[in-house]
Parts: sequence; C-alpha cells; structure tokens
Amino acid sequence: MTTRGTGSVDLELGSDIDSVLDALRDFVRTEVLPIEEKLGDLLTDPSRTYDSTGRYRPEILEARRAIRMRSAEAGYLQMFVPESIGGGGLGALAHYAVWEDLYHRWSMKHWLAFESVSHWATGPSHLFEHSSPRVREEIFAPLMSGEKTMCFAMSEPDAGSDLWQMRTTAHCEDDHWIINGIKQWMTNGPYADYAIVFAVTDHEQLARRRGGISAFVVDTTSPGYRVDSVIKMFGHVGSNEAILSFTDVEVPDDALLGELHEGLAFGLSGTTVGRLYNAGRSVGLSRWALEQALDYTAARQAFGSPVLDYQGVSFPLATCAIELHAAHLMGVNAARTIDAGRSGAMEAAMAKAYSTEVAGRVIDQAVQALGGMGLTNEVYLTQAWLELRAVRIADGSAEMLRRLIVGRLRKGDRDL
Amino acid sequence: MTTRGTGSVDLELGSDIDSVLDALRDFVRTEVLPIEEKLGDLLTDPSRTYDSTGRYRPEILEARRAIRMRSAEAGYLQMFVPESIGGGGLGALAHYAVWEDLYHRWSMKHWLAFESVSHWATGPSHLFEHSSPRVREEIFAPLMSGEKTMCFAMSEPDAGSDLWQMRTTAHCEDDHWIINGIKQWMTNGPYADYAIVFAVTDHEQLARRRGGISAFVVDTTSPGYRVDSVIKMFGHVGSNEAILSFTDVEVPDDALLGELHEGLAFGLSGTTVGRLYNAGRSVGLSRWALEQALDYTAARQAFGSPVLDYQGVSFPLATCAIELHAAHLMGVNAARTIDAGRSGAMEAAMAKAYSTEVAGRVIDQAVQALGGMGLTNEVYLTQAWLELRAVRIADGSAEMLRRLIVGRLRKGDRDL
Amino acid sequence: MTTRGTGSVDLELGSDIDSVLDALRDFVRTEVLPIEEKLGDLLTDPSRTYDSTGRYRPEILEARRAIRMRSAEAGYLQMFVPESIGGGGLGALAHYAVWEDLYHRWSMKHWLAFESVSHWATGPSHLFEHSSPRVREEIFAPLMSGEKTMCFAMSEPDAGSDLWQMRTTAHCEDDHWIINGIKQWMTNGPYADYAIVFAVTDHEQLARRRGGISAFVVDTTSPGYRVDSVIKMFGHVGSNEAILSFTDVEVPDDALLGELHEGLAFGLSGTTVGRLYNAGRSVGLSRWALEQALDYTAARQAFGSPVLDYQGVSFPLATCAIELHAAHLMGVNAARTIDAGRSGAMEAAMAKAYSTEVAGRVIDQAVQALGGMGLTNEVYLTQAWLELRAVRIADGSAEMLRRLIVGRLRKGDRDL
Amino acid sequence: MTTRGTGSVDLELGSDIDSVLDALRDFVRTEVLPIEEKLGDLLTDPSRTYDSTGRYRPEILEARRAIRMRSAEAGYLQMFVPESIGGGGLGALAHYAVWEDLYHRWSMKHWLAFESVSHWATGPSHLFEHSSPRVREEIFAPLMSGEKTMCFAMSEPDAGSDLWQMRTTAHCEDDHWIINGIKQWMTNGPYADYAIVFAVTDHEQLARRRGGISAFVVDTTSPGYRVDSVIKMFGHVGSNEAILSFTDVEVPDDALLGELHEGLAFGLSGTTVGRLYNAGRSVGLSRWALEQALDYTAARQAFGSPVLDYQGVSFPLATCAIELHAAHLMGVNAARTIDAGRSGAMEAAMAKAYSTEVAGRVIDQAVQALGGMGLTNEVYLTQAWLELRAVRIADGSAEMLRRLIVGRLRKGDRDL
Repeated sequence: MTTRGTGSVDLELGSDIDSVLDALRDFVRTEVLPIEEKLGDLLTDPSRTYDSTGRYRPEILEARRAIRMRSAEAGYLQMFVPESIGGGGLGALAHYAVWEDLYHRWSMKHWLAFESVSHWATGPSHLFEHSSPRVREEIFAPLMSGEKTMCFAMSEPDAGSDLWQMRTTAHCEDDHWIINGIKQWMTNGPYADYAIVFAVTDHEQLARRRGGISAFVVDTTSPGYRVDSVIKMFGHVGSNEAILSFTDVEVPDDALLGELHEGLAFGLSGTTVGRLYNAGRSVGLSRWALEQALDYTAARQAFGSPVLDYQGVSFPLATCAIELHAAHLMGVNAARTIDAGRSGAMEAAMAKAYSTEVAGRVIDQAVQALGGMGLTNEVYLTQAWLELRAVRIADGSAEMLRRLIVGRLRKGDRDL
Repeated sequence: MTTRGTGSVDLELGSDIDSVLDALRDFVRTEVLPIEEKLGDLLTDPSRTYDSTGRYRPEILEARRAIRMRSAEAGYLQMFVPESIGGGGLGALAHYAVWEDLYHRWSMKHWLAFESVSHWATGPSHLFEHSSPRVREEIFAPLMSGEKTMCFAMSEPDAGSDLWQMRTTAHCEDDHWIINGIKQWMTNGPYADYAIVFAVTDHEQLARRRGGISAFVVDTTSPGYRVDSVIKMFGHVGSNEAILSFTDVEVPDDALLGELHEGLAFGLSGTTVGRLYNAGRSVGLSRWALEQALDYTAARQAFGSPVLDYQGVSFPLATCAIELHAAHLMGVNAARTIDAGRSGAMEAAMAKAYSTEVAGRVIDQAVQALGGMGLTNEVYLTQAWLELRAVRIADGSAEMLRRLIVGRLRKGDRDL
Repeated sequence: MTTRGTGSVDLELGSDIDSVLDALRDFVRTEVLPIEEKLGDLLTDPSRTYDSTGRYRPEILEARRAIRMRSAEAGYLQMFVPESIGGGGLGALAHYAVWEDLYHRWSMKHWLAFESVSHWATGPSHLFEHSSPRVREEIFAPLMSGEKTMCFAMSEPDAGSDLWQMRTTAHCEDDHWIINGIKQWMTNGPYADYAIVFAVTDHEQLARRRGGISAFVVDTTSPGYRVDSVIKMFGHVGSNEAILSFTDVEVPDDALLGELHEGLAFGLSGTTVGRLYNAGRSVGLSRWALEQALDYTAARQAFGSPVLDYQGVSFPLATCAIELHAAHLMGVNAARTIDAGRSGAMEAAMAKAYSTEVAGRVIDQAVQALGGMGLTNEVYLTQAWLELRAVRIADGSAEMLRRLIVGRLRKGDRDL
Repeated sequence: MTTRGTGSVDLELGSDIDSVLDALRDFVRTEVLPIEEKLGDLLTDPSRTYDSTGRYRPEILEARRAIRMRSAEAGYLQMFVPESIGGGGLGALAHYAVWEDLYHRWSMKHWLAFESVSHWATGPSHLFEHSSPRVREEIFAPLMSGEKTMCFAMSEPDAGSDLWQMRTTAHCEDDHWIINGIKQWMTNGPYADYAIVFAVTDHEQLARRRGGISAFVVDTTSPGYRVDSVIKMFGHVGSNEAILSFTDVEVPDDALLGELHEGLAFGLSGTTVGRLYNAGRSVGLSRWALEQALDYTAARQAFGSPVLDYQGVSFPLATCAIELHAAHLMGVNAARTIDAGRSGAMEAAMAKAYSTEVAGRVIDQAVQALGGMGLTNEVYLTQAWLELRAVRIADGSAEMLRRLIVGRLRKGDRDL
C-alpha cells in the first residue's frame, strides 16, 4: 500500500497510476536489484564500470539488456508506446509520474532501475507509428522486446539549439539514400543497435528554414557508420554520449520515418513528452536529495544539537521543499494539460525550465547539508547534481525555453 | 464570456467559480468604478486621500460603506461566510480564485474594488459561528449588511510572531469582563465599529503555553477604547493600520467568542484561509504587473527595436512568468486540498511563502522594465510592491512559515 | 576622533579625508540638525512636507537654502568643484567617501544633511569650467554661494537610455537660441533657479549618432519655461522630480556650455563621478540599515531568546555584511582608479551596478529583520529602499551598465 | 612583460609581486608543462590517472615529486615559509596573488602547475617554527627540498566543524606518546610521508572546551598507521583525500609541535592564510572560466549572430564579471590587512565565503555558455566547478563562516 493521498490534492494521481507505480517498484525490487547486487563493484567502482574507451563493460550492457527484456515481458518497458503499435498507451500524467517516482525511489545509486522503462528516443516509441512494414518488423520489434536499443541522431557540432544549421546530408540514389555527416551528443550512441538519423534532403527548403530535413532509421552495423568517440564528461571515465560519423552510409528507401523533408517536425514530436520526462526526473531526484539532507542533519550532532536544529541549515531546506512542491505541481499540470488533448508545450517548457533549475539548487543544498559526506561517491548526491546539470543545457536549454516562453507571452498567451 | 480554459488544466476552476468571477467583475464595473470616478483626485492625490491624522477622509469611508452595502445586497460581500450563519458558503478554491482575480483585474489603482468582498478578520466571517444571540443580532447582522466593519485585535508590541508573550488581560467581574492592554497592527483599526480582542484570562495556562487566552467582541465606542494612532508606513500619509489601547474597557459576558481560555486556537482558525487570501492577491497583482511590463516594453522603442526584443529585458520576464505560474498552481492546490476536507495548513503555508516572495520579484522586475515610469504614482507598481512587501512579514512571516514547514518535514510530512 | 583604521586596510582613507568626514559630521550636528529640529513635523509628516502640487513647502525650501549657504561659507558645499573655478578641488576618493559617510551617518531620517554638499548636476560643478564670463558671474556665483540651485535637463519622455532619440531643439536666431521641447525626470526641477538644457542643434549629426546636441544654461524664470508637473512616485505626496516644457524659450549666445554640437559628451562628463556618488550613498544607507537590523534583533526577544540568536535571521544579515563590504571595496577602488588619472569608467559602472543591487537586498533584509516596525515611517527603512530603488534605473540602469561592461569585456578589458 | 596596472588601482600588486608572478609563470612553462606533456593520457584519461584503489599512478607521484624538487631549488616551493626557518618569507598579498594567478593561468587542465608551491598543510610551512631539532632535521628538511610531503590530520568522522568532539587520543608512556583513533578528510593523505596528527591529551580541558588537544608529527611508515581508504568523490575514480587510522602508533616526545594541550590554537594558526589560498584559487579559476565563456560565445554562431550578441547570454556574464571583481578586491584587501600586521580573520572569512560562492556561480554560468561542450572533460570546466564546490564545505564551511561573521558583527566589529 502506498501513502499517497494523505497530503495535497494535486499529489493524488488516481488509482490507475498508483497501481502502475506500485507494480513498477515491485518489479525493480524483485528483478533489478538482484542483478545490481550481482554486478557488485562493477557498478560502484567507476574504474571498473567503463572500459578504456569510456564504454560500459560487457557485463553491464548485458545486465541492461536483461532488465529491458524482463520489463518488456512484464509490460513496463513499452508502457508509453501507443496502443496502435502494440504499446501500453499510457498518457502524459503516467509518464511524468513514473519518471518522477523512479528517480525518487531509486536515485542514481540504483540507476539500473531506469532501464525498466524505455525512453522515447532510445527505445520503442511513437516515432514508429508511421514506419514501413520492414522497419516495424526488423527494427521496432526487437526494440519492443527490449533486445535492442537505438539512438536519436539529430544534433551536430554546429547545430545544437539552432537546428537549421544542420550539415549532414542524405541524397537519393536509385532506391536508397546515402548519408554523410557528423552527429554529436547521441545519448546511448555508444551502444545503440539502430539510429534515427536526421539529414538534409532538400537544401533549398533548409535555407528558407521551412523544411528539407528527413529522418531515417539506420542499422549501426552498416558500412560507413562509426562511433567516433564516447564523450567523457564531468571528469568521469565514461558516458552514454557519443559522436557519430556517417561516410556514404546506405539506407533503403523504406527506412524513412515520417514524411520526406518533414523530419524536423517529426523529430520534435517527442519534445514535449521529453520535457515531462526531464521535469519528472528532476523532481524525483530532488525529493530523494531533500530526504537525504533531512535524515542526515536530523541524526548528526554539532555543538550539542542535531544539525537540523540550526535555522542556517533548516531554512534553506524549507525553501527547497517549497520550490520542489512548486516544480511537482508544474509537471503534473503540464501532463494533465496534454492528457486533456491540448498542446501543453508552454506548460511543459515552464515545468522543465523550472524543475531543472530547482533540482540544481535542491541537490546543491543537500550536498551542503551533508558536508564532506555529500561529496563522496557513496551517497550519490554529486552524481545526481551532474546528471541534472546536463539537462539545463540539453532538450531545450534554459535560454531556448525562455525564448519560447517570451514568444508565447508576446502573442498574448498569458494565462499562466 | 471568459477565456479561461484554453490553457493549462489547472487553470480551469470550474463553471461555478467562473460564474462568480464574471459576475463580480460586472459588479465592480457597474457599481464600484462609478463611485471611484466620482471621488476623483480624492483617490489619486495622496495628500487628499487622508486627513492630518492619517485616516481616510469621510468621503472615502462613505464610498467604502456604500460599496459594501451594495455588494452585500448582491450577495458578494458575504459569499465566504458559512451557510449556517447566512453566508454564501463558498469554499477555499472560490476564495483563492476571487482574491486572485480581484487583484489581477483591478490592481491597486482600483483598490476600492477590494471592498466588495469581506475579509474574514475585518468583515463577517466564520468567527461568528459560535457567538451569543445578542452578538449575532447586534454585531454580526450589521457586518453582514456591510453597514459596519470590525478589526482583529490580536498582536501586541511585544507579541508578534510569539503570541504567548501577550500582555493584554481580561478579568471577570460579576457578569462582565474588564479589558486592559495595548494592541498593535490592527488592519482597519482606525475605522472599525467592532473589535475582536484577544486577552489573557488565565495566566497559569498562558505560562505553560497551553491556553489561557480568550476572545471578546468589543464595541469600539466603549469607554476606555482608544485608537492611539494610525501607523504610517512606506513614507505614506496614512494607512489602514492602528495601535489600540484598552483602559478598563467593560464587555458583557456574552461578548465571548469561542470557548473561554481557548481564544488562541479560535483566533488562528482563520489563518489558513488568510494565507490563501494573501497568496491569491500576490499572484493576482503579479499577473497584472507582468502584463504591464510586457505591454510597455513591447510598445517602447530603444536603439531601434522594441525594448522587449532585448533578452536582457525579456528573459527576466520569462522567469517571472514561470514563477508566477508555479505560485498560482500552489494556491490552487492548497485551496483544493482544503476543499477536500483536509488541513491544507502545510500547503497554504508553502503557497503563501512562495507567492509573496515571487510577487516581490515579479513586481520589482516590472518596475525595472518600465524604467522611470515604473516608479510613478500613476502606474501603481510601487504601491503594489509595497502592499505585498508587508505580507512577507504579516500573517506568518517568511521565517515563521519556514519554521512551520521544517517542523512538518521533520515529522515526516514530506509528500510535497 | 574616529575609529577608522582599526579594521581592513582598504577602509583607511587617509588622514586628509578622515578630517573632512569629521568636520562635515560636526557641521551637520551643529548647523543642520538644529534647523531640522525647528521644522518639526513639517519634515516627519508627509502631508505637511509638501503642498498640494507635490512641492516642498516654503519653510523647507528656505531651510535647504540656509544649509547650503552656511555650508558654502564653511567650504563644504563646493568642495568637489575644481580649484580652477574656485572650488575645493577634492578628488574622487573624497567624493565617494563623503557621500557614503553622509548617508551612513544621517540616513533618510536626516536627509537635510545631504544638502550640505552640492551634487554636480544640481549645484556648482565642473560643468562651468568652460562657461562664458557672464554665466560665471550671474549663474555660477550664486550657485557657489548656495543661494541658487539648478537642474540638469537631459532626458526626455522618449529619450531615456537612448539619448539619440532626443527631440528638444534649439535653433539660432541672430545672437540668441530658441529652445522648444519637453524634458522629463529633472531632479530638483521643481525648485531650480537655472537649468542646463540639452537640445538638438544639428539634426544631421544626430541622425548619424555622432553629435549635434548642445547644452545651454537657462534661467527658469525665462518666458516659455514651465514646470509642467512634479512627478509623484512610490505613492508619496511630492518629490524632487519634474517634467519641464520649453516653448520658444530664448537664451543668449553666451549661455552655451561646452562646445557647440558636442553637448552629449559634455553632459556625460559627470557620469562616472555621478556613479561614484550613487555607489557611495548605496553603501552608506546599507551600512545604516544593517546596523539598525543588528541592533533591533539583538534587543528584541522571541521564544525566549534575542531574535539575532536565530540563524534564520542572522545568516542573511551576515550575507548582507559580506556583500556590503564588497560593494565598499568596489567604490573605493573605482575612486582610487580615477584619482590615479585613469578613466575608471568600467570600475565605476561595476561599483554602481553592484552597490545599488546590494543596497536593495540589504535594506529589504533589514526591513524583514525589524518586522512590522521595519515598514513604519519612523524607522525610515522603506524610504531608504525606495530612494535607492530609483537608482537601479537612473544614472545608467542595471541593463545599460551591463551593456557597457559586456562591451568592454569583448574588447579584451578583462583585468577585473 | 605583464599587462597588470593598466586597469584598476587595486589590481596593482606592486613590482615585487609582479616579478614573482612572472618568474613563476616561466617556471611552469619551462619546467612543469614538459613533464605534463610526457605524461600524456596518464593525465587526461581518468581511468589511467588512478590505480584501482583510487591513488595516483606512480608516474604521476614521481612527476609531482620532480616538480616540487625543481621548484624548491628555484625557490618557489618554500617561498611562503617564514624566513626564520629558511623560507622565502613572502607575505599574505603575495600568497593571495600567487594562488590566484596559478589557477587563472593554468586552470585544472594543467593542475600539475599547482605542485610548484607548497600548501601550508601539506608542505613546509610556519607550523615547524617551534619544532624540535630532530623534527627540523629529519622531517622539515625533506619537506623543504620537495622530496617529501605531509598531511594535516585534524578532522574526524564525528568532529568536522565542531572540533571539540575529537576522539583520537594520545597518552604518554615513558618518553613517547601512543596515538589511537580515526581521522577523515586528509588532503594528500594517500601519499603523505608525514602527518601532523591532532589528539586529545587532556580530557578534562577538552570537556571544558578550553584546550587539551596536542599536535604530533608522525612518520606515516610507523607501525599502526594505516591509510584506511581513499575517499572517492564526484563519481571520480580517485582523489587526494584519505581516511586514516591509528592503532597504538608510537611517537617520541620530541614529535610534539607547538605547546602541549594547545594543539587546537596551533592547528588553527594556518586558517586565515588557508582562506586566502582558497579565495585566491576561487577567483583565479573564475577568471579563467569567464574568459573561456567570453571567447567561446564570441566565436560561436547561432541564429545568424555570435552567441555573445544575445543579452540572455552576455548579461549573466557581465554579472559574473562584477562579482568576480568584487571577490578579487576582497581577497586583496584581506591580504593587505594581514600584511599590515592586523588579524584579517574577519576579512579573510568574508573573502573566502564570497569567493567560493561567486566561483560556483561564475563557473556554472560558463558551463551554460559553452552548452554541451562545457560539460566535457576536455574543457575542464566541470572539474573546476567540482574542485571549488568542495571548498564551500572545507576550511570553514559557508555556515561556519557566517557564524563567525555574525559573532563579530554582534561584538560591534562593523567597520566593513
């Protein structure tokens, strides 16, 4: 039984979602944690987690695959995939709630738990709703079973926030396309079996910033496809991010996803739900961090009292609680707005911008509350901070979101 | 027709509340604004608004009375008074929404509009649910009709946040009580016809911080009752706040409100809804201020472009929009929590703490966006800032609310 | 004797400046405070301070004149005027230190003390270094004696930060100029005997943003010169700011100040020292406010301890102390840089931007520390906050200063 | 030649210090960078930098030793050691300036450069001024030559900010002491040849918080001395920090440093200069980070303009510049205050508190300005952020410094 529903009304998500959260927690407890335990210091010792190229060791990749496949069997991996293509069809509120809960309950310490649910850009998702029968069978099916994964190859070294600067091209020859270019910041890129690649197919449309970009799903074992490097960040040994290069990579005609030349709109179709995901995990990790801080300072003594007795420590934590609560309400509101059939783009942008900034403050304050202990690998607070630091840049930077919000305000969309 | 419901789901308040808001706007437009217009520069020239003692001129007091009485007839003044004693019985969400809307639509420029709805501490309210028949008839009835007003005499020069330091006493003689003491920060104190006075009736209970305080409703024309002074603030000429003194003021036995010695709990019974009121008007004035800033900077040119084209101006306004949205959701959530029959004390505390701080930032940023114009009397932004600056201190200061929040977090109430 | 020199090295200003500060304090004590006392509630009751048009009552204007004239005799009024034209010739560090000390010691409560020293834009200053003999004799002389004052008529309703949008014109006819236009935000405008008026004299140069503006000193009794209104701010009854209009105002040729068409550079020649003045008074008032907060909270009890024992109160005050110290060092450094014969424009811009923002935070925090008391007219904290709120807009707004700073950083001026 | 002295006066450090900075830069260029280059990816690949226990690989330890020894020969390593025991005797301003310059010029990318100058707690320092002849010869001499290093073993798992909770004991037997206990957060602990260990020698004095702690210098090869573990932080593979344990470790009588039972005062004697060191490197790294941000955003294009053209990017950088400038002035002022023979404790506390918080904001903003690139190992911004994040906790946490500052303010030390 859960304790939800004793507090604020807007914390009540409904019994359907509660059931999903409860079941997913059970799944993590019974299926994921034992795998984690078996991996032992492969997970806790960063020098053992990655190989010399910055990639996860095979045992870890195998563990991830095992979790995905069991979760797919149990119906969690694909629960956000549309029903029309065989998924669970859960909506935006469930989406937000699941990611918040996963990060809240398991934190970066048990990050393998996050493998239980597919992310729209690295696992099965709505992106395959309009794909060819071959793609559906050969590529989408093994994504749905959890056997395979993919990556989402859109941004480039010179095309980050401003996608119209894209330089990767695809030109048509007979019944196939030939792709050339370089892509950067591909999450899951070092490990993906497939990549959805965005390339310029009409330079004139591109120049007019109207279209001209198309999306293709590419097998990462294709000749000419290369993982140039794993992008190491934060002083860490390895990562999930890759730079990819494409040298005359051939893909058949039916690898096209969405409409020809309309790839940008297609690619951005996951943006709003992606922002919910990031808002959710920001709030979830912040909850966990605040709880760590409260528990630690309530137990630790200094100058004859629990540290939490000092307002110099407790008042900043109260402020964290207030902002965290606000962030949660924004995520829930954005999700409900989407589930009501409206755009939710403005609401999700505000929720994502706010939640990621709040998470930065809350986790930083939790580190401060734990003192030196807060810096150590074993409490996972700095890892949480760094994980979310990246999200103030990725997936709509703080600046791009403010541009969007200002634009909407100027148009009169002020019903905040 | 309103435009609500086109945006976020949590901005939808339901058709009942929408109807109230629409009707109340009509009331203000047709009943209040004409009175305001007739007063002319009595309202706009602060040297004419107040007399030499800092009190409103009679014409203004008369205008306020007229508005109250018409609003009572129309059913707005008393709409939050419980149905059991003849009020409209509207709930917390309506309460929050009405105050947000009043301040949003009318701003400090049309502050007379706020007289349309009674505040629980200066007009008819739930405080009279357990009063004697005489009090109900002689005092409550003219409050309900809008003819009379009252004030809430709880805090004292040395008993602000820490009410257990109260020194005003009431001792019983035969069938009446005799009150002696000084009270400070009585809103509407300079004008009130009645005062609910809190006094120590049992010193032993008080010393143990258990009880010992009782509440009496006092006619302000009683011998020994004195308005010592109007408290002038912000460099302004007058105000709504008074210091009161009581010298052997006699009140009959049946002037007791609530239980004997349990006056503190009784007095604090309006705290949560009072925080909703303050959260609502903070959000309402912030909305209005943000709209002023957007409109002004979109129209004004500098260096060849509208000022709003400069991110140095527009990005801070986007941040204002985000925080304002968060504040609104907190207020709505707190109100819904109360309407669901739960305490809502934690939620209202968070909403009030956050909203008043957000309002400080948003209105300050709006002033900055308008430049020198933002400082002038005629745009009413500084008046709005000052009005809400007081609320970071009153009605649960920022610090007292954090104490409350920390206390709840320590007890495990972390379902934020 | 002063206590300076016991703390930080950079708080030592040298014995020359210390002597000036000591002497000026004596002057205020012996010459200004008695005048203030005699005015009584003309100063403390804002409804008596101003007349119905928002102007100071004659008694106050007379008091200001008396102070100026005595200070001129004693040598303080004109101590920053260049020696070449008969002033004291004190440098930038003295300038900064005097204004910081005046606001620190006397606060807004004793604002008449500030009349003791002339401001470059309303009293005698370097602006008269290159003026005609007639101007020197008829206008500058009575400014130097303290008998008369002036105002600085540069900004306009549509030309605030962007001065190239100036519309006031002066055209030459025979041996005189005819001025037409409207000016806004003239400090001392309601009372000035003279005005330095900036007007377009060459439209072509103006269009190329190269020059074309000239400065003339105008007698405010000239036909066609009009104080259109006093600009009331903050909800107050009156102010020091005026809107002026010029209808065919004739001025003789020799009223030109500086070079023809080069009036903008001439007018901006006081900018850097004006920023020192504003930085100084921001730091001075902040010191005073912090001291109020420390003294009040050390004395006041709540929940059985002095309020200052609570870190929720004391830690924010520690942060105020840190920032205030930083602001002071920036002001001193900027002043020393100027006295060393360098530009100091970047340093003064940083000092002014920082100090005014710090003052906003420090005074606001002091208000919070004093609770309700902090809002009252009698402690003068809100008046201090409002006084300096205007300076985040005037004299180089926060935004314009950041533009300037960014520009310098881009040019490689990064030796911060 | 350097360019110092063209800007603010307080940036001029004097020709003596300028010469030291110039010479030290040459030393790094000619002596350190070649060693760095030879180490190649041992330095840039974190999986190669550390061994499986989290310790630096031998090649790196050897490189550090080589740099120390060459620097000692050249006279830099020991330049802050008092002249009375053979050091260079440079003062506080030099101290501050050297550390600011080292971190500014070389950043975390060339961290080996920082080995050129000894830190008072890990290399030769004033702590040996009152040591026995044996200690001077056997221990201090090889520290001075750079051959050996030490660590400073004061804090414990339960005695961080509150040192009176210390539990490590030393009891006297015949002519030696026997030490037992656990110490945590020893910088250089994994590698140190000697440790200065603080232990309780008089429990009664300790209980009265008067004294009772003594300092001993211990050879880390002594029986019973153990490096329990390297403390891994930030998700990194290794670190400089150790947990040490002492089991019946014997040290001779003449290993005592300072007075018996007065070890706490002795140990804290380096606090003020340690705060200057941390203030200096905070400002230095912030300068470097700001320069990275300015250069990157001036070069990078988005939406048709350099990113730095957007005020949403440039204004926050202007704020960084302002705060950085303030932080620098505070460090310089604290140093000059100490060099003038005064305590400087308050000034250094303010400088350290402010500088570390500014560094957090500046480096974070630089990361944001660089976007994804800012997160990568190769630009070293996140490493810089993390390096300084620890310093908001270590060496006087933000909270402990505010306690100290409040205490001084209460005592009337308000000459900020």
